[in-house]
Amino acid sequence: MRLLKELDERDSMEIGRSLHSFAADLYPICRSITGEGLRQTLGMIGQRIALQISEIPTGTLVFDWTIPKEWNIRDAYIKDEAGNRVVDFQRCNLHVVNYSTPVRAKIPLHELRSRLFTMPEHPDWIPYRTSYYKEDWGFCLSHNQMLALQNTEYEVVIDSTLEDGHLTYAEYYLPGRSEHEILISCHACHPSLANDNLSGLVVATALAELMSGHDLRYSYRFLFIPGTIGAIAWLARNHNAVENICHGLVLTGLGDGRALHYKKTRRGDAEIDRTMAHVLRHSGSPYEILEFSPYGYDERQYCSPGFNLAVGCLMRSVWGTFPEYHTSADNLDFIRPVQLAESLRTCTSVLDVLENNYQYRNLNPYCEPQLGKRDLYRATGGEAIGVDINARLWVLNFSDGEHSLLDIAERSGLPFSTIKDAAELLCRSGLLSVVGDESAANRNADNSTSRRAGVGRLPPGQGVIALG
Amino acid sequence: MRLLKELDERDSMEIGRSLHSFAADLYPICRSITGEGLRQTLGMIGQRIALQISEIPTGTLVFDWTIPKEWNIRDAYIKDEAGNRVVDFQRCNLHVVNYSTPVRAKIPLHELRSRLFTMPEHPDWIPYRTSYYKEDWGFCLSHNQMLALQNTEYEVVIDSTLEDGHLTYAEYYLPGRSEHEILISCHACHPSLANDNLSGLVVATALAELMSGHDLRYSYRFLFIPGTIGAIAWLARNHNAVENICHGLVLTGLGDGRALHYKKTRRGDAEIDRTMAHVLRHSGSPYEILEFSPYGYDERQYCSPGFNLAVGCLMRSVWGTFPEYHTSADNLDFIRPVQLAESLRTCTSVLDVLENNYQYRNLNPYCEPQLGKRDLYRATGGEAIGVDINARLWVLNFSDGEHSLLDIAERSGLPFSTIKDAAELLCRSGLLSVVGDESAANRNADNSTSRRAGVGRLPPGQGVIALG
Amino acid sequence: MRLLKELDERDSMEIGRSLHSFAADLYPICRSITGEGLRQTLGMIGQRIALQISEIPTGTLVFDWTIPKEWNIRDAYIKDEAGNRVVDFQRCNLHVVNYSTPVRAKIPLHELRSRLFTMPEHPDWIPYRTSYYKEDWGFCLSHNQMLALQNTEYEVVIDSTLEDGHLTYAEYYLPGRSEHEILISCHACHPSLANDNLSGLVVATALAELMSGHDLRYSYRFLFIPGTIGAIAWLARNHNAVENICHGLVLTGLGDGRALHYKKTRRGDAEIDRTMAHVLRHSGSPYEILEFSPYGYDERQYCSPGFNLAVGCLMRSVWGTFPEYHTSADNLDFIRPVQLAESLRTCTSVLDVLENNYQYRNLNPYCEPQLGKRDLYRATGGEAIGVDINARLWVLNFSDGEHSLLDIAERSGLPFSTIKDAAELLCRSGLLSVVGDESAANRNADNSTSRRAGVGRLPPGQGVIALG
Repeated sequence: MRLLKELDERDSMEIGRSLHSFAADLYPICRSITGEGLRQTLGMIGQRIALQISEIPTGTLVFDWTIPKEWNIRDAYIKDEAGNRVVDFQRCNLHVVNYSTPVRAKIPLHELRSRLFTMPEHPDWIPYRTSYYKEDWGFCLSHNQMLALQNTEYEVVIDSTLEDGHLTYAEYYLPGRSEHEILISCHACHPSLANDNLSGLVVATALAELMSGHDLRYSYRFLFIPGTIGAIAWLARNHNAVENICHGLVLTGLGDGRALHYKKTRRGDAEIDRTMAHVLRHSGSPYEILEFSPYGYDERQYCSPGFNLAVGCLMRSVWGTFPEYHTSADNLDFIRPVQLAESLRTCTSVLDVLENNYQYRNLNPYCEPQLGKRDLYRATGGEAIGVDINARLWVLNFSDGEHSLLDIAERSGLPFSTIKDAAELLCRSGLLSVVGDESAANRNADNSTSRRAGVGRLPPGQGVIALG
Repeated sequence: MRLLKELDERDSMEIGRSLHSFAADLYPICRSITGEGLRQTLGMIGQRIALQISEIPTGTLVFDWTIPKEWNIRDAYIKDEAGNRVVDFQRCNLHVVNYSTPVRAKIPLHELRSRLFTMPEHPDWIPYRTSYYKEDWGFCLSHNQMLALQNTEYEVVIDSTLEDGHLTYAEYYLPGRSEHEILISCHACHPSLANDNLSGLVVATALAELMSGHDLRYSYRFLFIPGTIGAIAWLARNHNAVENICHGLVLTGLGDGRALHYKKTRRGDAEIDRTMAHVLRHSGSPYEILEFSPYGYDERQYCSPGFNLAVGCLMRSVWGTFPEYHTSADNLDFIRPVQLAESLRTCTSVLDVLENNYQYRNLNPYCEPQLGKRDLYRATGGEAIGVDINARLWVLNFSDGEHSLLDIAERSGLPFSTIKDAAELLCRSGLLSVVGDESAANRNADNSTSRRAGVGRLPPGQGVIALG
Repeated sequence: MRLLKELDERDSMEIGRSLHSFAADLYPICRSITGEGLRQTLGMIGQRIALQISEIPTGTLVFDWTIPKEWNIRDAYIKDEAGNRVVDFQRCNLHVVNYSTPVRAKIPLHELRSRLFTMPEHPDWIPYRTSYYKEDWGFCLSHNQMLALQNTEYEVVIDSTLEDGHLTYAEYYLPGRSEHEILISCHACHPSLANDNLSGLVVATALAELMSGHDLRYSYRFLFIPGTIGAIAWLARNHNAVENICHGLVLTGLGDGRALHYKKTRRGDAEIDRTMAHVLRHSGSPYEILEFSPYGYDERQYCSPGFNLAVGCLMRSVWGTFPEYHTSADNLDFIRPVQLAESLRTCTSVLDVLENNYQYRNLNPYCEPQLGKRDLYRATGGEAIGVDINARLWVLNFSDGEHSLLDIAERSGLPFSTIKDAAELLCRSGLLSVVGDESAANRNADNSTSRRAGVGRLPPGQGVIALG
């Protein structure tokens, strides 16, 4: 449990403030699923971890989808007749419907109205809207802003470009002792939205920094990608890597004030599901575990039936269930250092369990070994035993080649770290030996393959050909 | 979902009144497990649906049973010394213990008493009693009637015959695209009892009328039979047909005012069990699901271990649990048009699910297909999706060759009809294809065979030989 | 159900008094894991049942353990300067830390203190402490006794011997029709402690007496052994017998006033687990069922992963959870005749179920057989059936070669005895036949072997060689 110990040696408030500060740096950028805002964001992450950047040309086929044109924007506004910018992209990049085509026109209010998006139930907030796959334009504004508009003509300008270019994504690959991988994925395509996007980016970046430089059991792949199309593009181009993914998490919405919510993988009983449940159960904080559903974040793609990867999703507030979702109220005040730090700690705990969840073998399976002569038992008989001795008995009794440490932790009700400590002590005492590292990892990978949802293997070269 | 739609296009109160009216026509007839009353009843049903009538001679062996003598009755009474009929079969056919042997005698009250059945706890009701398999006679009367009897001699007449003849039953066979069958069975042997008998007959008849003339996936077999001995006789003579039965329902007690109760098949997790649970859960009405038990109606025979058919039982009040059960209070007032109509609708919903519960295959199993370019998604990103789009995502994600539409409905929590609509739309869009009709039906039939309760196949010709 | 009937024909209060009286006879003896107190105890049990006594020499290796030196004690005390025995082994044998090495010394109180054990929270009680595997000495006394000690010098005498000798245990083997065994084990090593030790010894002895002289399905082995080392020694020397153990119970703590607690086997769903749950559920008394854990009594050894025997543990109060545990308050007042008798009755019920839990085969599996013609049904139709007829229907329907009588009792909710009576009646009527006695017993034994927890078979001769 080195990772968590290392994290816990640091000041957690300082960690939180550092996460929030990085989110604040990223906040003003106008990101989208393509374009310079996305590149700039990946560039700033790349100053912390060694990202490998990929650019996929417009028009490339990725499974059923096509890489869209690249969108960039410099300015946009609605000006009244007096020349005042009554809606101004420079003040908030949510004001423009993301992926709006360029426009320069004078339009009377009654014609403009169908292109204006507001939230009457929150009259001061600006909604976030997009039109990636249908060429269109529009503005988002607060309902009060709209009520203040006069029934006259307005000058409407969107200084954007929508042209052949590239879709950009980044990955950070951290090699471990095994080529079997843990995938951490977060979307990087939302503009000035703090919880739904930036919180995931900053936690994933910090997690990657924390993991690097360690001798790791698994290899790790961190993906920073535009939502949906980015995940699809990555899967189409990397189906060899997919074979190695044993466990995965989509990270987003990790900064707000609600309890942690974990949405299970499509399989529902994957090791990541059981690990997350264990960590949350012992966290001391409230939490909720949600069944898999095919709507949500990029777990939709990783858990599509052809892949059926063991990828869950960790959030605090669940998409669509909180009023600030996809509005200007999802701002830097909505996310808090202490909550970002707790989310990072939860991820770290989970990875620590996965890194350490081996099977062991009791080398004296017939009756208990005599712990007393090895100073592993209490000296005076007749008294109760402590939790440490209890953990040793659990590990010995269930290290039968069929139970992992997580299985034993779950069955005993003890925290994984207590069980892990007992296993290490018993190993040092010659009473226990680990069941081969590689075989354990292979078991997971085989599992992930055989549990593909009955649709057969990806045809050889399908992803590659699709990219033509 | 054509069947339910067709039913819902009609006036449900009118349907209810029509069901009740048919019950009222059948009510006065003195039915038994053999005889003219049973024939007359089947004749009246036969005016609505094309019944095939079978007559099995007295003495025929059917498994462990023997077809009994045929019973007919013209009149019966108890006359006091003044010549008044103090108990009169002409006023209520429950007054005679069903299957009473003929008698003409003068008997003092103290001798007669052991042959009189009353219900002291409901002093105005007449109980329903039978003596099919032990030759005997008796009268049923209200407790108040008995209390009014004088301690004198009475003239006792039962003008019945119990002689070699036949046992009669009827079936209505509706061929579908597959020879795999759905069995609907109801008993037709009770005399003037409305809920426990007639409600089942009229609902089953209406269901048969509703189904006929459609292009159906399954073949349907409606059985109108005397209880116990009729089911046993049919099973003994039709073991080839038994092989084809995939799903089945015993219908009875469908007119009273209690919630619908479904008693599960012996298997407990058959498709009919899951279908009924789904339909009832989404019905908006209270309901209850009961575990299988070997006492009840003719599911006792269909679910005997040698057959172990997937046959459940739909009722409102459960046999033996309501005071009116097997008494004269189970009359035409006890059953109501609105309740009969709701029962018919539930049966129709269930058959609609079974008819449509195919497996489909997602033709783009790697990542989501792009619904937007097919106009199957909302145009503006950032907004929530509706239940229809959600249903499409569920169908796509779980159409992996392992989940039927019912599986997907259950896992998503959405009604079957919503899931079915999504599947049809996705088929039309080329994103989904049905997994072969025949293979799906075969799977059920194989299932039903292989799940025979470990007693091996019926020996060839056993039923036939038994019929000698 | 002969065993239970035989027990119930006797006066249960008389049984209880007799159990308590035997416990009172055994109470004063200073037992330990070796020595004359243990031999004397086994001798007194041996006056009731024909025990086979084993003696294993000091130094013998048994798996990871070594048979310790034999301990005997004649006297021990702490004398004040006035020559008064302020702590006196003759008054209570708990006063000496069990297995204390001999000592004769004058020691000032401040030096003596570290060797004195008290219970400040129960200042009048003497704790029970041992030091079997670390040579040491000490005294246990009430906290009030300790407070009364003066800060002067005391004469300390422990007149014990700790020398090469033997470990003693006893077994009572009762052969049945099959060599498949039921193991009843209780520890016999605690000195004057009534519930935690003696209650198990007296109930097990009475159970053995009750069983003997019957024609039994299973063979029975009753073990009276020193805790931990005795179970380990027996397992090491008897691995051939282990192969035959199908079911087992550790008995202890059966006399106090709490509800019965059953701790499940490591397997969790063994026949003994299901039997005990059934018996307790129908007992009419409160009870509790605990999951397996690797701490407790000798089930720790029987359920070690190399053996993984189907051995559970029946108690009233659970070790360590009641204040009197391992103190002088666990005395003859703490156990009551009525509770000892109820514990014996529960054990008898359990063995009765195991003896009778066969599978039967319905010889008329197609439809119900006609019970009426065999006088196994009610004569007048239309009335409700009683529980006896209901039990017959359950037995017929589920005697399909896959369900034992216990399975049927569980599924029907009826008591095992009702189901068993129905099965016997149906056998006599020619409707049912038992599935081969031997095959049923073999099934259990195979089960027990194949469910070994993945650690392979005991290497041939391991136990023997270990005993060198």
